Amino acid sequence: MYSLKELQELIHNEISSLSTGEEPKGLYEPIHYVLSLGGKRIRPALCLLAYQLFSKKEFGKEVIYPAIGLEVFHNFTLLHDDVMDAANMRRGMPTVHKKWDGNTAILSGDAMMIKAYQYMAECPEKYMPEVMKAFNDLALGVCEGQQYDMDFESRSNVSVDEYLEMIRLKTSVLIAGSLKIGAIIGGASQKDKNFLYKFGENIGIAFQLQDDFLDVYGDPAVFGKNIGGDIVNNKKTFLLLQALQKAQGQAKEELNKWLESKDADTEKKIAAVRNIYDELGIPGLSQDLMNKYFNRSIEALEQIDADENQKADLKQFAVNLIDRVN
Amino acid sequence: MYSLKELQELIHNEISSLSTGEEPKGLYEPIHYVLSLGGKRIRPALCLLAYQLFSKKEFGKEVIYPAIGLEVFHNFTLLHDDVMDAANMRRGMPTVHKKWDGNTAILSGDAMMIKAYQYMAECPEKYMPEVMKAFNDLALGVCEGQQYDMDFESRSNVSVDEYLEMIRLKTSVLIAGSLKIGAIIGGASQKDKNFLYKFGENIGIAFQLQDDFLDVYGDPAVFGKNIGGDIVNNKKTFLLLQALQKAQGQAKEELNKWLESKDADTEKKIAAVRNIYDELGIPGLSQDLMNKYFNRSIEALEQIDADENQKADLKQFAVNLIDRVN
Repeated sequence: MYSLKELQELIHNEISSLSTGEEPKGLYEPIHYVLSLGGKRIRPALCLLAYQLFSKKEFGKEVIYPAIGLEVFHNFTLLHDDVMDAANMRRGMPTVHKKWDGNTAILSGDAMMIKAYQYMAECPEKYMPEVMKAFNDLALGVCEGQQYDMDFESRSNVSVDEYLEMIRLKTSVLIAGSLKIGAIIGGASQKDKNFLYKFGENIGIAFQLQDDFLDVYGDPAVFGKNIGGDIVNNKKTFLLLQALQKAQGQAKEELNKWLESKDADTEKKIAAVRNIYDELGIPGLSQDLMNKYFNRSIEALEQIDADENQKADLKQFAVNLIDRVN
Repeated sequence: MYSLKELQELIHNEISSLSTGEEPKGLYEPIHYVLSLGGKRIRPALCLLAYQLFSKKEFGKEVIYPAIGLEVFHNFTLLHDDVMDAANMRRGMPTVHKKWDGNTAILSGDAMMIKAYQYMAECPEKYMPEVMKAFNDLALGVCEGQQYDMDFESRSNVSVDEYLEMIRLKTSVLIAGSLKIGAIIGGASQKDKNFLYKFGENIGIAFQLQDDFLDVYGDPAVFGKNIGGDIVNNKKTFLLLQALQKAQGQAKEELNKWLESKDADTEKKIAAVRNIYDELGIPGLSQDLMNKYFNRSIEALEQIDADENQKADLKQFAVNLIDRVN
């Protein structure tokens, strides 16, 4: 029985020991570069955690490789997202399209997705149809979420429900799918696979809602990034969409004024918009909604037939995800 | 028993009847657009032709969908290649990144590759590990070929052997893999799958050598594109690489002069370089090499245990691919 932390370490070591030096270098070096930038390896670790909920066997390549495939896929999405967002830095290092060029980032990303499928195809043959379906579903879901996210930038009428569906696709289905793939390979029952998927889906949404909240209300020393970036960029988060829905009269006018302002002083804009959020009771609504999804995830977890100690690890993971404010 | 032409028609109809209208439209409309632009549907038709070499069963979705997956994958590579080449037109219509934008082309391409895997995963469960391996191999091979092709643009010391390996990866492995996947699903023996792969690999190289030849020596009315484009662009084809290797003294100087010339009159450059090729005997060497690969493909075909009439269809396909000059 390994803890999540031990599994993150295990995956980290496995990824560090992957062979390098394949040709052509222009295709493969960017892939190893992206994978070497680190990250918490949460998705593959959750895959292994799900596996050991249902199987007493030691980890072999039939589950470690699919877990690595999930991390390779996740990093592929970051690589292509960085091209689309024209982002220069990732984890404190230049992005692939800055370090190499745009074409390299596109083609290496494509190869990286295929590598992810290669790792996935190392699962036991008897589970392959189910694993492939789960992986295809999560992969397409992530693309759909990214498309909605880009669409929302130029739309003025995004509803809260649409936003929640977007973050479900963009964030949750990869977490939920990672858990499900581990459970499939661990031989879980259909019922347990479904509840584990629900756990992941809901905790992913709760996480993103908390992330949106902390971007406005977090302690910069703890949150690890600048506060207020979403406000500065008019990012259509739950907070903004809820505020746009609730604001009336003067508050509505003022909120729209800040949204339309160009070259506004960023500190003033952050303070003013946060003030409007406060007056409208948005922080409370945000925390309520976050708690609703958190509780749903815990309820799903409780339905799973598995060792209580191990389920406790997943519960702790959920609590840690949400509890980053303190 | 269907002819290649009938199978191309069958695939065309299947692709035309694929459901459209999925959301988000920004992700899926470009995919349908690319698939609607047509093309000869050679790869999926070859997949079905290979299947019916070994199976007497009517085509069901367990082979038609994987065949469609091959066409979807092929069109995905065209979509991303067009972004990388900054090409404005494809089959007489604007490319996706011109009609929409670069980000749409990247993300829709990613989704398209996943769709290809979804179709591939409709193969019979018992063949899935083998089909997935064949598909992953061909997909990664195409990326490697594209990378070498891009690398060669900025390299001055490309050898003929490197060029042949590049076109094997960029062109042949998709043709060979399409045949192999059809053979796998048709229940072919390991020996027959291997020979069919060899047939595809060699005919693909012969095809590309012939394409290079026709770009310089073809009849524009028959070849369907302008003659001399490769010469104008200093494209490192077999002809140029062989000429660079053979040229001595004055011929070498003149060839290098044309390669380094900026803003040269294109007609003069084409005529002059063609003249150098003629003097060096390059056309004959090109046709000899093409014939060598063509003959290898036919030899591989002859080793396959299957109905001679049906093998005749594949042989005719090979002849047609090569015999476009008349």
